Amino acid sequence: MCGVIGVYGHPEAANLAYLGLYALQHRGQESAGIVATDGERLRSAKEMGHVNDIFTADRLRELRGYAAIGHVRYSTAGDSSKRNAQPIAVDYFGGSVAVGHNGNLVNAAELRERLEAEGAIFQTTADTEAIVHLIARSREQTLPARVADALRQVRGAYSLVFLSQDQLVAVRDPMGFRPLALGKSKDTWVVSSETCAFELLEAEFVRDVEPGEMVIVDGNGVRSERPFAAQPPHRCVFEWVYFARPDSTIDGNSVYRARERMGRRLAVEHPVQADVVIPVPDSGVAAAIGYARESGIPYDQGLMRSHYMGRTFIEPSQHIRHFGVKLKLSPVREVLTGKRVVVVDDSIVRGTTSRKIVGMIRGAGAREVHMRISSPPTVGPCRYGIDTPTREELIAFKKTPEEIRHFLEADSLGYLSLEGLYTSVNGSEGANKGFCDACFSNAYPINIQQPARLRQLRLITG
Amino acid sequence: MCGVIGVYGHPEAANLAYLGLYALQHRGQESAGIVATDGERLRSAKEMGHVNDIFTADRLRELRGYAAIGHVRYSTAGDSSKRNAQPIAVDYFGGSVAVGHNGNLVNAAELRERLEAEGAIFQTTADTEAIVHLIARSREQTLPARVADALRQVRGAYSLVFLSQDQLVAVRDPMGFRPLALGKSKDTWVVSSETCAFELLEAEFVRDVEPGEMVIVDGNGVRSERPFAAQPPHRCVFEWVYFARPDSTIDGNSVYRARERMGRRLAVEHPVQADVVIPVPDSGVAAAIGYARESGIPYDQGLMRSHYMGRTFIEPSQHIRHFGVKLKLSPVREVLTGKRVVVVDDSIVRGTTSRKIVGMIRGAGAREVHMRISSPPTVGPCRYGIDTPTREELIAFKKTPEEIRHFLEADSLGYLSLEGLYTSVNGSEGANKGFCDACFSNAYPINIQQPARLRQLRLITG
Amino acid sequence: MCGVIGVYGHPEAANLAYLGLYALQHRGQESAGIVATDGERLRSAKEMGHVNDIFTADRLRELRGYAAIGHVRYSTAGDSSKRNAQPIAVDYFGGSVAVGHNGNLVNAAELRERLEAEGAIFQTTADTEAIVHLIARSREQTLPARVADALRQVRGAYSLVFLSQDQLVAVRDPMGFRPLALGKSKDTWVVSSETCAFELLEAEFVRDVEPGEMVIVDGNGVRSERPFAAQPPHRCVFEWVYFARPDSTIDGNSVYRARERMGRRLAVEHPVQADVVIPVPDSGVAAAIGYARESGIPYDQGLMRSHYMGRTFIEPSQHIRHFGVKLKLSPVREVLTGKRVVVVDDSIVRGTTSRKIVGMIRGAGAREVHMRISSPPTVGPCRYGIDTPTREELIAFKKTPEEIRHFLEADSLGYLSLEGLYTSVNGSEGANKGFCDACFSNAYPINIQQPARLRQLRLITG
Amino acid sequence: MCGVIGVYGHPEAANLAYLGLYALQHRGQESAGIVATDGERLRSAKEMGHVNDIFTADRLRELRGYAAIGHVRYSTAGDSSKRNAQPIAVDYFGGSVAVGHNGNLVNAAELRERLEAEGAIFQTTADTEAIVHLIARSREQTLPARVADALRQVRGAYSLVFLSQDQLVAVRDPMGFRPLALGKSKDTWVVSSETCAFELLEAEFVRDVEPGEMVIVDGNGVRSERPFAAQPPHRCVFEWVYFARPDSTIDGNSVYRARERMGRRLAVEHPVQADVVIPVPDSGVAAAIGYARESGIPYDQGLMRSHYMGRTFIEPSQHIRHFGVKLKLSPVREVLTGKRVVVVDDSIVRGTTSRKIVGMIRGAGAREVHMRISSPPTVGPCRYGIDTPTREELIAFKKTPEEIRHFLEADSLGYLSLEGLYTSVNGSEGANKGFCDACFSNAYPINIQQPARLRQLRLITG
Repeated sequence: MCGVIGVYGHPEAANLAYLGLYALQHRGQESAGIVATDGERLRSAKEMGHVNDIFTADRLRELRGYAAIGHVRYSTAGDSSKRNAQPIAVDYFGGSVAVGHNGNLVNAAELRERLEAEGAIFQTTADTEAIVHLIARSREQTLPARVADALRQVRGAYSLVFLSQDQLVAVRDPMGFRPLALGKSKDTWVVSSETCAFELLEAEFVRDVEPGEMVIVDGNGVRSERPFAAQPPHRCVFEWVYFARPDSTIDGNSVYRARERMGRRLAVEHPVQADVVIPVPDSGVAAAIGYARESGIPYDQGLMRSHYMGRTFIEPSQHIRHFGVKLKLSPVREVLTGKRVVVVDDSIVRGTTSRKIVGMIRGAGAREVHMRISSPPTVGPCRYGIDTPTREELIAFKKTPEEIRHFLEADSLGYLSLEGLYTSVNGSEGANKGFCDACFSNAYPINIQQPARLRQLRLITG
Repeated sequence: MCGVIGVYGHPEAANLAYLGLYALQHRGQESAGIVATDGERLRSAKEMGHVNDIFTADRLRELRGYAAIGHVRYSTAGDSSKRNAQPIAVDYFGGSVAVGHNGNLVNAAELRERLEAEGAIFQTTADTEAIVHLIARSREQTLPARVADALRQVRGAYSLVFLSQDQLVAVRDPMGFRPLALGKSKDTWVVSSETCAFELLEAEFVRDVEPGEMVIVDGNGVRSERPFAAQPPHRCVFEWVYFARPDSTIDGNSVYRARERMGRRLAVEHPVQADVVIPVPDSGVAAAIGYARESGIPYDQGLMRSHYMGRTFIEPSQHIRHFGVKLKLSPVREVLTGKRVVVVDDSIVRGTTSRKIVGMIRGAGAREVHMRISSPPTVGPCRYGIDTPTREELIAFKKTPEEIRHFLEADSLGYLSLEGLYTSVNGSEGANKGFCDACFSNAYPINIQQPARLRQLRLITG
Repeated sequence: MCGVIGVYGHPEAANLAYLGLYALQHRGQESAGIVATDGERLRSAKEMGHVNDIFTADRLRELRGYAAIGHVRYSTAGDSSKRNAQPIAVDYFGGSVAVGHNGNLVNAAELRERLEAEGAIFQTTADTEAIVHLIARSREQTLPARVADALRQVRGAYSLVFLSQDQLVAVRDPMGFRPLALGKSKDTWVVSSETCAFELLEAEFVRDVEPGEMVIVDGNGVRSERPFAAQPPHRCVFEWVYFARPDSTIDGNSVYRARERMGRRLAVEHPVQADVVIPVPDSGVAAAIGYARESGIPYDQGLMRSHYMGRTFIEPSQHIRHFGVKLKLSPVREVLTGKRVVVVDDSIVRGTTSRKIVGMIRGAGAREVHMRISSPPTVGPCRYGIDTPTREELIAFKKTPEEIRHFLEADSLGYLSLEGLYTSVNGSEGANKGFCDACFSNAYPINIQQPARLRQLRLITG
Repeated sequence: MCGVIGVYGHPEAANLAYLGLYALQHRGQESAGIVATDGERLRSAKEMGHVNDIFTADRLRELRGYAAIGHVRYSTAGDSSKRNAQPIAVDYFGGSVAVGHNGNLVNAAELRERLEAEGAIFQTTADTEAIVHLIARSREQTLPARVADALRQVRGAYSLVFLSQDQLVAVRDPMGFRPLALGKSKDTWVVSSETCAFELLEAEFVRDVEPGEMVIVDGNGVRSERPFAAQPPHRCVFEWVYFARPDSTIDGNSVYRARERMGRRLAVEHPVQADVVIPVPDSGVAAAIGYARESGIPYDQGLMRSHYMGRTFIEPSQHIRHFGVKLKLSPVREVLTGKRVVVVDDSIVRGTTSRKIVGMIRGAGAREVHMRISSPPTVGPCRYGIDTPTREELIAFKKTPEEIRHFLEADSLGYLSLEGLYTSVNGSEGANKGFCDACFSNAYPINIQQPARLRQLRLITG
């Protein structure tokens, strides 16, 4: 997954982009980058790692100028390496342009094949680079026209921010898979993957960028274009289930409130006699509170989450058993011993972590463990920008809920229904009103077509 | 504050020490270090930073041997620099010895003065180094005897782990200011500042090391000595209020359960009409749950905590207002808007952060903000190992609760009484049963005597 | 200036390329790089700095394969930055290709303009990159054919090495500005800018690559093509004067012997009564020995050269005079005091260093200082790959020899004549037999044509 | 070997120390360090590596103050690690003191044993640290008195510079093994291992510090003391043969002139019919010039020395023969082919390098190779500060000159006689006038006494 930010009209634009990326860090912890313009030239800094490790005061000072875009990345297309960090920034005949992308293109391989046959030299394995080459080859004269020209050849999910020496362009794909919001702070315009970034930037939410909309900010102010044919919206429902931050509001629906309602609804759909409701922190907290309220069972903090965990945790090589989830979570025995425990989580992917959590709770003395999931069974991988394993690795693709319960060694297991999910997100009795739920339904709105001669992308290393 | 770990009898002792430090990371995030022995020689690695950034697989592999000690540090005596990172490891006439220290010596300056006058050359500004020189000068023949000889000259708070080529020695000062627990996993003995480390090491809690006890582990097994004259215990009550991890149990009392009881008691001592109870995460969660249960007011998550925050956050230099608490916390508007909010925190030090939190909650639309603190007013600095500002900086030293409420711009403010605190920790109606509460009562069990000619410690830099 | 190496047919090809670059280090100390192939893919490592600082054992191990090319660079076109380090390696429709270039293209800006207008995205500011794009756009099917196709569109000086997954291609431009030699060690073919690299690789000199020749080495052995129209040769005479290493032989003429003859001839053309002949080390040694022999004046070592000097020498900011040449050279007073000194150097560029050297010798007590230069006055900048200042900065463009002598504060000054230079290089009475002497004669064999719309190349930084 | 520098009375004293170390770099390339004082406190910077890689402008700026000492080190006692880099700087009861040492103490192990038994904790394995502990334990009140007190307990070779907050003290041991010179530039006093540093600092040579002299520079100016009983001088003759820089003058004798005379004398002692005299660069140049002059055989440059060689040169692992001397030297075939060659070097240690040089010259086509050595056979290791192998590894300890010649595969071999050496150094017919020639004569002026219980020094690593 990724997050994008764009800032226009502030003397320290890169600093604001940095704060925005900090607020969007949950959308990608692999690499981060900022490109800024002072009207004359673009300056770029990107690195593997976390936002506040990458950007020192010195580095931010070098990124001078009044406009900037930023990107945090967790790779879903293209390998994880500094080369693939975004924004991608290039010089071409029309000047300089940088781009940050949240989403996934479904015809990237096909486009790359065609462009390379015409002599294009790719520098990354990211699908995003095809857009850059299409812009460089466009016969249009302005950046917005070149961008529109390029994106008309592209299919898939994209919330994009572009920066040239003097323009900021933000685009959301016609189906609106990924969120994108517009904000304003005095004379500064901000676009952000999520509204949670506005709090830190002291910007006010103006409106969501609409599916198929292109927003252009430059010396003439802000304007909007709709360069694509209209399509039915397919906003990713998993943003509300798990991905977005609880303090964000997407397309008018509060993430926190949606999650709390998922928990309430879950208590209605899957009630149980129990002594305590606990969340799997942090993502299960709001739903667990909802479940506790609706059921009347006391809410408690039965699992502690460590916030010091990095990626490179070294496990003892041989003499100690595999730690798995223990590095991330630890049980509070006083809350669990002798209790019938309802544990609420947002989803189950492979099932292995959930199984360990059930074991950890039982190991701390719980009498019964009832698992409740605030979304339907995950049966299909995401093709539009969320990192999910292959279908075969998804436990719900291969097993029934009862088989899963058995695998988890839980006393009971309840998933929220798809109808219950939509009711919770919409806040009213409801069906799918323009959402993509391919991961729960296997109904994919855009198909991936592989090119005739798909080449394995193996760039020169080093 | 600091945390210590000791491991004896495991082929990958340094790896276990590493896991233990990871579990103790909350006790010190400034520097961390491990010293290991293979029976022949000590090997050391220490660095500024977090445990899982410092120790790579390569580094751990170099720390070979069957015994190890580890230390995480947040400086309370001696400046913050790599030189002061612990364990301190030296070679001396009797062999090699390393030491990790949690606590503060009150006669450190006096000891240093005396030792330097005799020709000792100090390499750090940490109070702990005086112990090392006393050991090197001792006429005793064994490490335990040298350690006892050295510690009889020392006054203050200390939970210590020592490592020589073939012995692990753990000592808790006669008053027992800081916790220290003994655990065991098969043939491996573990000592740890807190029991929460045992979960990850798959060790079982054996017992607390008692105030004034010295535990020696070597090829002959484990044994215990009591080299000091007995003194009335003064266990730090603030460990239960804030410092220790909720999933630890200290001297027989569960930290989580104590905090939840503090919240319940707080609801009795300071009731209020309100719509929602929210914690200041993460330290206020247990008490807020207790308050909500006792009062019947719904518990909710009104503040989100960022877990990506590092120390070196770069703020925009001039054009944006000071961010203060915003980098750490952000409000969930849906939970707060239009509500009468009870916000529960563990303590108030200077008052500036609490004031910002009240402002943030009100800015998110709360109708009323009632602050509840699960400990008495903090009126004195800690001299025994917790980093607190000077008395003059403590808001409760200078202002009455009503004046503090006014400063915080809260609608009401309630502190837990000292009696209520002891009731909560003991789990029964209670007075002070062997605790140090100097920070709440100004009653310091050991006085600091300054040496006649106290020199300003300014070591050679670079 | 730059140096190139190519190796084919050795299981540790990158190691040999590394040794070759070490021997060619004098041709460029700014950056170095190696690209190797194992038949499947190219692997690359390049960095700013010296060859033996850049390549660790680990790095070389990663560069696995049986063929490799290497490059050392001192920037003459394109700024000095890691981005411009060579070999440039890219993936394109036809596979992977890497290129290392010694020389300068005179129509680089024109080519870039045209390629960018067609949508090409450049990643460097080096003139060499245009060749890569021409290859990627070529309709030819094989690497040699694509290279020939590309180079037919290019004008200027180039000795080039190319590497694909399975071929090594070496090309010398039709005028043969820069040297390029072919060697062999058992089954391993080597191409190198200079023959001095063969000693270390234990390769035997086979022959010089001829102007206009393309040598292809692959699984079928070595073969030669001549894809360009024949042109009169213009080999750079300055290689013999200064640039090449004394132990190299270029196009049949020994560099050391040529320099010693320049010194002898200089003694004939500019005799003087003196006590001692000293070189400016290291480049003036051979000519000084020649001068001493021909004149009968004793040779001595009057100036010591420091070999520890790096680029980043820190000078005291304010209280000490500018050190200039003192960091590089220091006088041996015993050799100079009271003497009439002949000091021999290879050339004078701006005159400032020569002036300091004269001052240093006189400051050490010399009675007279006679400067002798083993080449004619430098009156024009090089356009074919040697870093020289603009014409206006060349002292001999603006001043007569007598005016220069006056500026240097030397007692006499003598330049070698152009006829004397050719006699020395050829080893027989001689005129210009196919050399470029534009820097001495201002007769440039290829003119630079600026494109109609030359853009200032300022790539995105960071 | 090591070099020391001291500067007092300059607002950028550390910068001057840096320049001095740069000029002394040949005396130690392993590590370098500077300690400076601003009158209040000492600041230190030291690192493994070369002087101009270690000291950046930022680092030098931090080393503020009007006095500084510096040290370059090649380890002869104590292992090679950053911990052993000098100056050693400590805080002790009397204040702060730093020390840089050139030489070797012969009773270091004995002193360390005694000091550790009294409780001293050593931080390095360098013999120099014993001096620091002796100073810290001295009952004297001033730094000069403490230093004298300490050094009276020490035996061996030492040229030392000490720095406290407000004094610079320089001491040369009573036998004067290592050189030490005093210079002055306006109001700035300088002490340096060699006079060659004065050129760069623009200081004038004042006089040599005499054996047994202590020079004190502080706010009261410069003064001299003689705290030790007088002893017959034993100045190291190998400084003139090899170690010192040719442009230095030690104790009144020019190093360059001495070497040139060694060459002349060598031609008298060991004449030969030959075509060319070549040096092994750089150390053999002056003697080769002398040999050529005296013999009338032409001098030429038959071997080129690479100046890009670092320590960590990576050799191909298996497929290429061991390179040995080829990385450092390469032959100029035109000078050697078909010739009878006299090759002049300063000394032969193990003989392996000399054998490779003879082979290289012969491999380049020489008809005869006559090796001439400008010193007597090296038969004993140095105990006073020069890194030499054990006696058993010295080829001249085990073989006669004829056997050595046979091993080298040279046509003839001639060593300078000891009498010839003294004649050359003194500049007049001469015997040993106060020199140490233990390496040539096995007559050691001070014996090493090992302590009763010598412990293997193995400090804690990491």
